[in-house]
Amino acid sequence: MKLTIERAVLLTALSHVQSVVERRNTIPILSNVLLEADGEHLALTATDLDIAVVEKLPAKVAKPGATTVAAHTLYDIVRKLPDGAEVELTFTPAEQRLDLRAGRSSFKLSCLPKEDFPVMAAGELPHNFTLAADQLRRLIDKTRFAISTEETRYYLNGIYLHAASSAGVPMLRAVATDGHRLARVEAPLPAGAAGMPGVIVPRKTVSELRKLLEGGSSEVKVELSDTKIRFTCGELILVSKLIDGAFPEYERVIPRDNDKVMEVDSKAFAAAVDRVATISTEKSRAVKLALKPDGIELSATSPDHGSASEQLTAVYSAAPIEVGYNSRYLLDIASQIEGENARFLLADALAPTIVRDPSDDGALYVLMPMRV
Amino acid sequence: MKLTIERAVLLTALSHVQSVVERRNTIPILSNVLLEADGEHLALTATDLDIAVVEKLPAKVAKPGATTVAAHTLYDIVRKLPDGAEVELTFTPAEQRLDLRAGRSSFKLSCLPKEDFPVMAAGELPHNFTLAADQLRRLIDKTRFAISTEETRYYLNGIYLHAASSAGVPMLRAVATDGHRLARVEAPLPAGAAGMPGVIVPRKTVSELRKLLEGGSSEVKVELSDTKIRFTCGELILVSKLIDGAFPEYERVIPRDNDKVMEVDSKAFAAAVDRVATISTEKSRAVKLALKPDGIELSATSPDHGSASEQLTAVYSAAPIEVGYNSRYLLDIASQIEGENARFLLADALAPTIVRDPSDDGALYVLMPMRV
Repeated sequence: MKLTIERAVLLTALSHVQSVVERRNTIPILSNVLLEADGEHLALTATDLDIAVVEKLPAKVAKPGATTVAAHTLYDIVRKLPDGAEVELTFTPAEQRLDLRAGRSSFKLSCLPKEDFPVMAAGELPHNFTLAADQLRRLIDKTRFAISTEETRYYLNGIYLHAASSAGVPMLRAVATDGHRLARVEAPLPAGAAGMPGVIVPRKTVSELRKLLEGGSSEVKVELSDTKIRFTCGELILVSKLIDGAFPEYERVIPRDNDKVMEVDSKAFAAAVDRVATISTEKSRAVKLALKPDGIELSATSPDHGSASEQLTAVYSAAPIEVGYNSRYLLDIASQIEGENARFLLADALAPTIVRDPSDDGALYVLMPMRV
Repeated sequence: MKLTIERAVLLTALSHVQSVVERRNTIPILSNVLLEADGEHLALTATDLDIAVVEKLPAKVAKPGATTVAAHTLYDIVRKLPDGAEVELTFTPAEQRLDLRAGRSSFKLSCLPKEDFPVMAAGELPHNFTLAADQLRRLIDKTRFAISTEETRYYLNGIYLHAASSAGVPMLRAVATDGHRLARVEAPLPAGAAGMPGVIVPRKTVSELRKLLEGGSSEVKVELSDTKIRFTCGELILVSKLIDGAFPEYERVIPRDNDKVMEVDSKAFAAAVDRVATISTEKSRAVKLALKPDGIELSATSPDHGSASEQLTAVYSAAPIEVGYNSRYLLDIASQIEGENARFLLADALAPTIVRDPSDDGALYVLMPMRV
């Protein structure tokens, strides 16, 4: 293998693939990135056995070939090369060595044979559809904060992606919950997604995919089976296993009859919650909302520090009610609201509260109150 | 106590004093800041029993008085208040409670009596002089990287500040070393410093003082005895204990006869060292410099990763020599060089190397080679 490639092109691609590679690996080859040169391309592949990312780059290939080298080391070297450098890569099979040259720098890197690099077969992916990258970003960004980190509830450790119907209109839905709060965001169902099974996309896949969506591609092709999913953004492909579990019947926890409606400026609300929560204990993070005609009083107390309260103007005309929440959850949801106002729908102090973004009908949040 | 004060003024001062307060304290009152209102000022004091910082701020004092409240909590509250807010502070002695009001926010904070707040007496400080803030910043910035973190060598855990003579000219010198490298930086001796004892200013004091020097004051008054030092920058006072130990006779390790001179572009050198060191092992960080007429070859090897080398143009006319260094130490020193070039003075591969900044005669660095 012998090729030259622009440093900037190689760096961007390495930054994509190397983040899949875990820092510590018991299987040495999992620390490596697979390099395959052929025709006018260099393909990079990295995997942690659950996710594989492949990116194809334009390169001047003088001699085709393939090998694997330490992903983080290669990334660090290319990152430290001067801007505008041309990188020359030469693989000598007899010595299992990759030579990297750029300007007056020269590196000889130990390789492991490409034959040992684990190939992640996607298998048959019978369902496929195409989604605008913006739409996929929105589905991820507005739900990922609610993904559970409790490993015992592994079926909550991802985003549940499925086809559903909202008032008779077919929708593609993303749902995440950790049992304390839930985020449900939907987009019009793309052609081809109607028969798709509901799948749980793992947290790490969500996070890697989100990074890849920063790139230029405006459309993402999604292909999936019951067990695997593949995302294709331009020359970038991410294949991932899906979480093998049943996502709970989340519709049951979304209340239908919350009739107390409160609307408040979401930025002012978030700032006030943040201030008042300074006093609440590290552990509970509780703040109390007292809803009264045309206003909210936010308050928090702590046996160590004292108490805090703040008045806030809000539109509210139902019977006064007091309800407590975890302030961090309130802030997480408030930061998802894109419009000026956040709309709260409550039943009583113990039943789940719904939060909506009047500027985005497709987003809905559910928050469990806490006793305060 | 009752007063009003501008949020911005209070915030800046709290950011200065709260950083002295440790996050965890076995003595509760050490988590607090002392507030004293009198005349047209509010004074804030924080201490960890080794360092005390006092800052005096303009305030509208309606009723003098004093109390103590949790420093980090007060800082967080004030930080989260909206820009431009006026803060009203009222202390109710009967309830040991401080009320803080700003706009529609209200906080009631638990207090501890001011009588319990430890006063750090500076005692008599017979030596005093005034230094330009720029000059003190330079003495700190160019030496602090070499301060030892080994607690067993407590007498190296600070900057050694003392009066000395350089070619017959009286100088104020700052020296720090960890046994592997040494930084010696000097400034003209200010009037009044001639008779001062050599003192070791502890690492935390150096770091707090450096933050205070970010402020506007252009001159710093320094007062000291054998055991304490006081820095006054405008309305800010920092008092600190000194390290009770003998700083080693560092002049002995500074070689006088290094006759092999190499001069190199310091930015290009640092970039090359950084690149080549990517290969060296996490533990040793070793890079080798091979000095040859008009050039350096930098190299590193690792049993795991392979090897790296880079050619660099340099001015060198003595006999060829090979010498190894810890790359992190080389980078630390290179980042102190303000001029275009760094000048290396070597004797052989085992003796200490001197590094100088041709643009700053008052700065000198010594670096121990390592076997590679």
